[in-house]
Amino acid sequence: MPPIEHLASIPDETLILPPDVSATALREALNQLAKIVGSNNVQVHTKESMKPDDEGHYYNLPKEHDLFYILEKDTFLASGLVAPGSTEEVSQIVKLANKYLVPLWPVSIGRNLGYGGSAPRLRGSIVLDLGARMNKVLDVSVRDCTCLLEPGVSYFALHDYLQKNGFKNLWIDNPDLGGGSVVGNALDRGAGYTPYGEHFSMHCGMEVVLPTGEVMRTGMGSLPGSNTWQTFQYGYGPYPDGIFTQSNYGIVTKMGFWLMPDPGGYQSYLFTFQNDSDLPAIVESVRILRIGMVIQNSPTIRNTLLDAATYGPKSDYTTSEKPLQDSEIDEIANKIKVGRWSLYGAMYGPKPMRDLQWETIKATFMKIPGAKYEFAQPVAEGEKMSVLQMRDETLRGLPNTYELGWLNWTSPRGSLLGFSPISPASGFDANKQYQMVLKRFQEFGFDYLGTFIVGWRELHHIVCLTFDKTNPSERKRAHRCIEALIDDAAAEGYGEYRTHLCYMDQLASAYSWGNGASLKFNEQLKDSLDPNGILAPGKSGVWPARLRGRGFELKRSTERKSESTMIAKNQPSNRRSISSHLKL
Amino acid sequence: MPPIEHLASIPDETLILPPDVSATALREALNQLAKIVGSNNVQVHTKESMKPDDEGHYYNLPKEHDLFYILEKDTFLASGLVAPGSTEEVSQIVKLANKYLVPLWPVSIGRNLGYGGSAPRLRGSIVLDLGARMNKVLDVSVRDCTCLLEPGVSYFALHDYLQKNGFKNLWIDNPDLGGGSVVGNALDRGAGYTPYGEHFSMHCGMEVVLPTGEVMRTGMGSLPGSNTWQTFQYGYGPYPDGIFTQSNYGIVTKMGFWLMPDPGGYQSYLFTFQNDSDLPAIVESVRILRIGMVIQNSPTIRNTLLDAATYGPKSDYTTSEKPLQDSEIDEIANKIKVGRWSLYGAMYGPKPMRDLQWETIKATFMKIPGAKYEFAQPVAEGEKMSVLQMRDETLRGLPNTYELGWLNWTSPRGSLLGFSPISPASGFDANKQYQMVLKRFQEFGFDYLGTFIVGWRELHHIVCLTFDKTNPSERKRAHRCIEALIDDAAAEGYGEYRTHLCYMDQLASAYSWGNGASLKFNEQLKDSLDPNGILAPGKSGVWPARLRGRGFELKRSTERKSESTMIAKNQPSNRRSISSHLKL
Repeated sequence: MPPIEHLASIPDETLILPPDVSATALREALNQLAKIVGSNNVQVHTKESMKPDDEGHYYNLPKEHDLFYILEKDTFLASGLVAPGSTEEVSQIVKLANKYLVPLWPVSIGRNLGYGGSAPRLRGSIVLDLGARMNKVLDVSVRDCTCLLEPGVSYFALHDYLQKNGFKNLWIDNPDLGGGSVVGNALDRGAGYTPYGEHFSMHCGMEVVLPTGEVMRTGMGSLPGSNTWQTFQYGYGPYPDGIFTQSNYGIVTKMGFWLMPDPGGYQSYLFTFQNDSDLPAIVESVRILRIGMVIQNSPTIRNTLLDAATYGPKSDYTTSEKPLQDSEIDEIANKIKVGRWSLYGAMYGPKPMRDLQWETIKATFMKIPGAKYEFAQPVAEGEKMSVLQMRDETLRGLPNTYELGWLNWTSPRGSLLGFSPISPASGFDANKQYQMVLKRFQEFGFDYLGTFIVGWRELHHIVCLTFDKTNPSERKRAHRCIEALIDDAAAEGYGEYRTHLCYMDQLASAYSWGNGASLKFNEQLKDSLDPNGILAPGKSGVWPARLRGRGFELKRSTERKSESTMIAKNQPSNRRSISSHLKL
Repeated sequence: MPPIEHLASIPDETLILPPDVSATALREALNQLAKIVGSNNVQVHTKESMKPDDEGHYYNLPKEHDLFYILEKDTFLASGLVAPGSTEEVSQIVKLANKYLVPLWPVSIGRNLGYGGSAPRLRGSIVLDLGARMNKVLDVSVRDCTCLLEPGVSYFALHDYLQKNGFKNLWIDNPDLGGGSVVGNALDRGAGYTPYGEHFSMHCGMEVVLPTGEVMRTGMGSLPGSNTWQTFQYGYGPYPDGIFTQSNYGIVTKMGFWLMPDPGGYQSYLFTFQNDSDLPAIVESVRILRIGMVIQNSPTIRNTLLDAATYGPKSDYTTSEKPLQDSEIDEIANKIKVGRWSLYGAMYGPKPMRDLQWETIKATFMKIPGAKYEFAQPVAEGEKMSVLQMRDETLRGLPNTYELGWLNWTSPRGSLLGFSPISPASGFDANKQYQMVLKRFQEFGFDYLGTFIVGWRELHHIVCLTFDKTNPSERKRAHRCIEALIDDAAAEGYGEYRTHLCYMDQLASAYSWGNGASLKFNEQLKDSLDPNGILAPGKSGVWPARLRGRGFELKRSTERKSESTMIAKNQPSNRRSISSHLKL
C-alpha cells in the first residue's frame, strides 16, 4: 500500500475511482485528508497494491479488500484509507467527503470475518479506519459496572485493560474471536455467550458523527453534564440508537457498555448427543430452560464437524474430498469424543445456586437417549486443549482465537462465508433448517459445519461455509450455494440477521413486507440524513438517492437463479462445469 | 361531546381550530373521517363540550383534554376524536390529515396520567383514539411465551385473556395502574415490577403507520411469512423501533411482547427502615444486589407519605394543611406500620432458589440499623389491604388500581403531576435528588410523595405531586414547582425520562448537548417522515417545520424563571400572593 506521498507517482488508470469522482478529485480529497489526519494516516490503494493471498492471514488483515473474498478479490476494493485520531477529525473527514462525493466505509477494527471483513460494499470507497488510532478505554465505572469505549478497543484489549487497572471484578462478553472490536460487533448486532451475550441490548449510550459532520450523543449523553450516559439507555424523546446499527446513518465514535460483575462462581458443561436426529429434542429443551430462566446464557449446539475442524483439517480424518456422509461423521465423533451434536453451556453464580440449576439442566438433557455430560478439566501440561476447554474460556468472557482453527477444514488458505438465518427456537424449525442447509451443501459439495444458538427466544443458526478462496471454482460454488439458501430460507419465513457484502441487496429485497416498506423507509432516512450519499453506500442494501438504481446493487438475477437451479439439479459435484458456466 | 351529526349546528367560533386550518376545512375533514370510520366513531369537541370536573374520574376519562389539567383546562384541547377500526383505516385517516393539514394525536387508551392523559400537545389536534376499537389480543404463543397486541389492550384485558384462554402459565408485567394500554405504556417507555419490568426491552416487533400513510412492519415482521416476528427483535439492517417511542414519527397499530412464564414460585417482601437518612444505604444495597443478579426485578423504595396516602387522605392523619415535617411523618409511619422508607420487592423462582436469594437479601438490608422485614399474609376477610398486600399483587403481574388512592391526598378531586428524573443508582445521588425535591416542595407548599426504583442500572426517582386541579392557585404552584425542578435537576446532570405535555419543550431544550444536536436530529427525521407536520406536533418537544418557531413551544421564559425564584425565596407558603402574581 503506497503511502500518500507516492500519490503523485501513481497513474490515473490504476486509481480505484468511486462513482462520480474523477482521478483529480480523488487525489485532491486524499491530499486534503492528509492535512486533517497527517500523511502517515492516509493510504491510497490500487489493484497492484492488494496484498498477496499468502499474506492474508487473520493477524495481518488487509484493509483494502475482503480477506475472505468470495467474488473477485478486487470487487469490493477500497480506493484508500484514512485513520482519524478523534471525533473532531471524523467530523472534518465527513465534511470533506461531502465536498468531493467520496464515499466513506467506516470500520471499527475491520474483523467482520465471513461477512466482508473491512472491505467496502461500494468499490472505490475510502475505508475510514476508526480503530487504528481511536482505541482507548475512555471510562470504566466499578460502581455502575459500565465502560465507555472507542471503536478500536478489541475484546482482548478490554479484557487486558480491566485486568491491569484494578477492575478484575468486571467480566466482559466476547464472541468466538477476541480480536474484533467491541463497538463494531455490537453495531453489527453480534453476540457472545455469557448472560450479557446480546451485545446491542447491553450497550448504553453512543456518540455519533452524522453524515453531514454534526456530532450527536444519544440517550442521557444528550444532557450536558449527565452522570447516567452509561447507565440509562434511553434519555428523553425518540430513542435513535437502533438506527445506527447495521446501517449507514452515522459513524459511532464512542459507545458505552454494561459489564457483568463476577457472578460469584462459574461452571461450564458439555452434553454430547449420539444421533443426528437428536437435534429437535435438544433445541426444545434449551428453549424451555432458556425462557424459563434456568439457563442464563446462550449455549451452543455444535455439529460434529465444527468440533472436528477446530482440532484439525479434514485430511486428518479422511482422504475423501466429498462431503462426508453419516457413517463417516459418526466415526469422527467417536474418534474425537464429541456428539453428533454437542451442547456447550455454562452456569453463573455461587455453587449452591448452580447446584440447583444443574439438577434441572442435567435431568432435562439426560432424558435424551444416549446423552452424556462432562465438565471442563484444567488443561494438563503439554496436552492439546479440548473444545470444551476452549468453550469454557469463551463462556466466561476470556477472549481467544481458538475457533480460527476450523477455517482450514479443507484448505490451508481456508476462508469463511457466514450464513445466519433466524428461526423459532423449536425442534421442528431447527431440523427443517438443518435439512435445508444440508441438502444445498451436499448439492454444492460442502461439508456442513454449523451451530445452533438460542438467544433471548429465537434460534440463531450459524452456518460456517469454509472454502478455498484461491480456487475460483470453489468460490463460485460457495457463492451460489449461499445465494440459493437465502432464497430457500425466505420461502420458509426465515431471514438472516446479517450477511456478507455480496448478499446485502438480495437479503434486503427478501425483507419485502408491505411492498418493500422497510427498505423504502430506510432509503427515506438515508436521503434525509445523508443527502450526498457519502456514508457506506449499499450497507445492508440501503443505497443513497445519488447511487440508487445505477447498477451498483447486486441482486440475484432470474437468469442466475435458473442457472444455479439447473446446476444444482444436474451436476451437484461437477466443480469444473460450474466454474466454466458461471460468471459473477 | 356532540356526535358528528351535530357538526352543522355548531357555530364556527366554538370549534377548536388547529393552526392553518379553517372552520370549513375542519368540518370537511371531520365529515370525511366519518366516511372512513362511520359517523359513530367521530366526535367534534368545543369548549362547551368539555366534561365538567366532577365527571373527570379515572374510570370515565375525558379524551378531549387532560383529566389532571395543570395549565387551563382548555389549553391542550382537542378539536375532535376519531376511532379507527383497523390499520387500513388508520392509514386512510393519516392520508386525509395530510390533505387538510389537521394534526392527529394518537393515543392507545389515553391513560398517560400525570403526563397529560389523552390530551394533545397542540390545541385543535384530533385525538386518534386507537384503543377504542382496536383492542384485540391478536396472538399468544405458549411455546415462545409471546403475544401480539392492538393498542387498546389494557393490562386488565391481557391478564383476563390469558386466564380465560388456557395461558395461565404466562404472567404479564403491569405498572402501578392496570387500566392503561400495554402498547401505549411501552411506547412511552414505562416500566413495571417483575423481571420483565422494562417494557420497551421486552417488546418484539411493531406494525407502524407512517405519517404519509404507508404501513411498515419492523424486525422480522418485514420478512413476508416470517415466523419470528415476536421472538427476534431486530431483523436485518437499521433497527428502527426506538424512534417510534416517545415520538411522533409513526402510529403503532400492532406490537409484540415477551411474556414471562410462571417462574415456579414467588415471594414478595417488605423491608422497613426507620430513618429518613437511611435512603443512601438502601439505594447502595439495591444497586449492588440488582446488578449482581440477586434481585431479579425493580423493587420500589417508597417514602412514608406515599404509603400513607394509599390508605387515606391527609385529613385522616392531621389537621395541618402545611407540608408535613419530620416528627409528623415519623408519627404517621408508626401509626401505619411502614418505614420512613419502605422497600417492596419480590423473588421469582422455586423455593430452594428463593431461599438462597433471601439469605443474601435479608443479610444485606438487615445490616441497616432499625430495619425490619415481613412477608405478605393473605388478606383476611373484611380486613383492609396493606400496601404490602397491594404490592404483592403488582409485583406478580396482577393488574390493579390500588395506587389511585394516593391521588386524593389533599383533595377529593386530587390530580397528579409526574416528575421523573433519572440518576445514578448511588446513595449520594438518591439523597441529593431527594433533598432537591424536598426543598422545592416545601417552598411551593407540597408534601413529598415519592418512590425510588432501580432499573437495569439507573435510579428512577418518581415524584408524585398531587394537587387540587379545581384550585387555580394550587395548579399554578404545582406548575412552577416542577418547572423549577426540571432546571434544578438539569443543572446537576439529571434528566427526566418523560414529562407532562406542558414541559415537553422545556425538557427537550435541557437535552442540549452539542448545540442541541439531538433535537436538531429529531427535527430532521420529523421533516423527512412527516413533511406536512400532521402527526402529534410538539410531542417530546419535536415540532414539524410547518409549526416550528411560530410560538407553539412552551419554553420557560426568563421572566417566569426570575419571578418563580423570587417567590420561592420570599414567600414559600403564601398561596394567595402566588396565585395573584403568576400568569400562565
